[in-house]
Amino acid sequence: MSIIGGAYEEILLTTISLLTDFGLRDGNVGVMKGVIWGIAPNARIADLSHTIAPQNIREASFTLLRSAFYFPAGSVHIVVVDPGVGTTRRPVALRIGSHFFVGPDNGVFTGVIGLGERNSWQFQAIHTDNPAFWRAQVSHVFHGRDIFAPVGAHLAAGVPFEQLGSPIEDLIRLPLPKPERTSNGWKGEVAHIDHFGNIYTNIHFDQLGENMQAIVTLGASTVKGLVRAFGEREPGELVALYSSTGFLMLSEVNGDAGARLKAKVADPVQVKLQDE
Amino acid sequence: MSIIGGAYEEILLTTISLLTDFGLRDGNVGVMKGVIWGIAPNARIADLSHTIAPQNIREASFTLLRSAFYFPAGSVHIVVVDPGVGTTRRPVALRIGSHFFVGPDNGVFTGVIGLGERNSWQFQAIHTDNPAFWRAQVSHVFHGRDIFAPVGAHLAAGVPFEQLGSPIEDLIRLPLPKPERTSNGWKGEVAHIDHFGNIYTNIHFDQLGENMQAIVTLGASTVKGLVRAFGEREPGELVALYSSTGFLMLSEVNGDAGARLKAKVADPVQVKLQDE
Amino acid sequence: MSIIGGAYEEILLTTISLLTDFGLRDGNVGVMKGVIWGIAPNARIADLSHTIAPQNIREASFTLLRSAFYFPAGSVHIVVVDPGVGTTRRPVALRIGSHFFVGPDNGVFTGVIGLGERNSWQFQAIHTDNPAFWRAQVSHVFHGRDIFAPVGAHLAAGVPFEQLGSPIEDLIRLPLPKPERTSNGWKGEVAHIDHFGNIYTNIHFDQLGENMQAIVTLGASTVKGLVRAFGEREPGELVALYSSTGFLMLSEVNGDAGARLKAKVADPVQVKLQDE
Repeated sequence: MSIIGGAYEEILLTTISLLTDFGLRDGNVGVMKGVIWGIAPNARIADLSHTIAPQNIREASFTLLRSAFYFPAGSVHIVVVDPGVGTTRRPVALRIGSHFFVGPDNGVFTGVIGLGERNSWQFQAIHTDNPAFWRAQVSHVFHGRDIFAPVGAHLAAGVPFEQLGSPIEDLIRLPLPKPERTSNGWKGEVAHIDHFGNIYTNIHFDQLGENMQAIVTLGASTVKGLVRAFGEREPGELVALYSSTGFLMLSEVNGDAGARLKAKVADPVQVKLQDE
Repeated sequence: MSIIGGAYEEILLTTISLLTDFGLRDGNVGVMKGVIWGIAPNARIADLSHTIAPQNIREASFTLLRSAFYFPAGSVHIVVVDPGVGTTRRPVALRIGSHFFVGPDNGVFTGVIGLGERNSWQFQAIHTDNPAFWRAQVSHVFHGRDIFAPVGAHLAAGVPFEQLGSPIEDLIRLPLPKPERTSNGWKGEVAHIDHFGNIYTNIHFDQLGENMQAIVTLGASTVKGLVRAFGEREPGELVALYSSTGFLMLSEVNGDAGARLKAKVADPVQVKLQDE
Repeated sequence: MSIIGGAYEEILLTTISLLTDFGLRDGNVGVMKGVIWGIAPNARIADLSHTIAPQNIREASFTLLRSAFYFPAGSVHIVVVDPGVGTTRRPVALRIGSHFFVGPDNGVFTGVIGLGERNSWQFQAIHTDNPAFWRAQVSHVFHGRDIFAPVGAHLAAGVPFEQLGSPIEDLIRLPLPKPERTSNGWKGEVAHIDHFGNIYTNIHFDQLGENMQAIVTLGASTVKGLVRAFGEREPGELVALYSSTGFLMLSEVNGDAGARLKAKVADPVQVKLQDE
């Protein structure tokens, strides 16, 4: 299925994902879908999350990183976590490999840009300053509806990426702390705590590898050795294991490790590769 | 795309929106979608909100007003906030301009009816008393599944509006307080507090206009002058500005004004057009 | 519309429902949709619930029972409430009547299997052990993404049910307590408490019938006689009535009976058929 430059007729159904901090109560997510389907009647739309903590660009970046590339090639991911709405921060569109991203230039794409770089995927960025692809009236407080949804929908409907605006290269990135090698392991931090209370660190399998004897410490809690699956231990036990996207994670089997350890994003995490 | 009277073949995809107080836990929203797709296999379905406060017709009316008309022409909006389910309150369908609405006759359409009147849009109302378009068995407690979803789906699938039942004119409307002109401004009230804590008043741009020096008071808090965008002030500052649908709003930049001001729906709001 | 064995061209749109305990914050539900649409581009996807209490197989079984069969024939219901992910518990697919079910063999299908048996619907079960229909890489912690979504999607895209794996017969079932006949009525328990606070019992219309004089007792509260609809009593009154799927229910008109009666799942419920 050709998206870029493809004739409209060739496109059966394109996929759009939505990631916002809008919550689910006020109708704003539905409004974005209404706007999208007015432009791209054949788009399938999936919600990634709408309960990113308000204005939390870091959380949105991490959620997008863990999710986007499981979608079909050609998908358009619209992200609206946008504390700078109505200011001079730029609306942008990115192409990373075979995926497209639309949203504010505020660092929310830090995760997926980094992943693309590590994999040497094709990368292009556009300042989506061509108002031909916006709603006719643009409010100062809801660019999700007036700029990002229509730009994403036009892309999904076959508008060539390059027509959306002017090429740029200087995208804003979050200064996310990277895990550091220590004398006997790695030093990282808590990156995310999910619905189940799984505590994701920013230490990845690509760094730590199949090191199943590693000893993981968060605050006063230490877990000796990694498991592969929750079911290797009894309910209530604290375990360390890799998340499905390869991040080192602390979890309680059938329980809520985040609440138990009172963990917060940015808490330091230590990994020792062997006991001393 | 012709919906009313259009042959089925002409219809590629019609859009349905859903607005309920069902919550997201129990499967009832999914059941409505299952029923709809059994009748209108090509319908796209968007959730507006399912976390309207239980039985809160006023909140549903305001959410529908702010959302419905951003959808494509021909969309069908199904609303199920229905404390009178199983009683003699009528199931109804409305046509307002190029949009269709299906739900209980309990005032939930007050907002969109008023908007249609102010714009002189075409208006028709039907008591959807033709059981040919209901599920064969109708429960006393879930008309969303047994009447409103199938009626909306038949409409989306090409059934002419007039066939759904008997024309009516005496729809129930909520006695919503309207903003009043005062000697030096306007007197209104809080209409809604959203997920971010933005406090929507019932005072609209159509009344107040480009009056950027206006002074807005809610309880013990006063904001002097309106801004256009959140980013004109620092995080933590209280601002007054227009919402994306034109309602005067009190907000905290990157914060939660609703919690800070302990605001509730129906709290009085004063606007002075100039300081004295 | 032929699903089983049908050529791909014959299938316009198949419906998939999703039922999980993933919550809505972390992107995992969206990821499953992305995976599905990569395999079955024409599938319509409805969320049943993603806020099943973590690892609560019983709640998922009851929600599925009350929801699945309102979907169109040929629908595929993917259920991921899966405390045993990554262990030896089997991934399975069921055919019950004209509906398909995909998920872990942990009892989550107890409700729908029982309903099928009571109605003598066609029944087949498969251990979905054919990795040709999984993602190429299967993580130990997210079979929703790597096994259940792709298996369900292949089914929706026309793969014959029998090709998914090996036939089995010994599915795990929850030992759910059944209502018991007493000398003057029925003894059951609380099965579910919904978003509105309606208290579902496990006593069904099929057992109790049109017995409108029945007296229902839960803890210290007794309700004399059933009503058909909430509106037969005043707001604030406690009523007993049948849910839209036929379960005897205790409710507060326009209120929250669950909170008022401090009810919990498994609390005992007594029904007397007549006063003594």
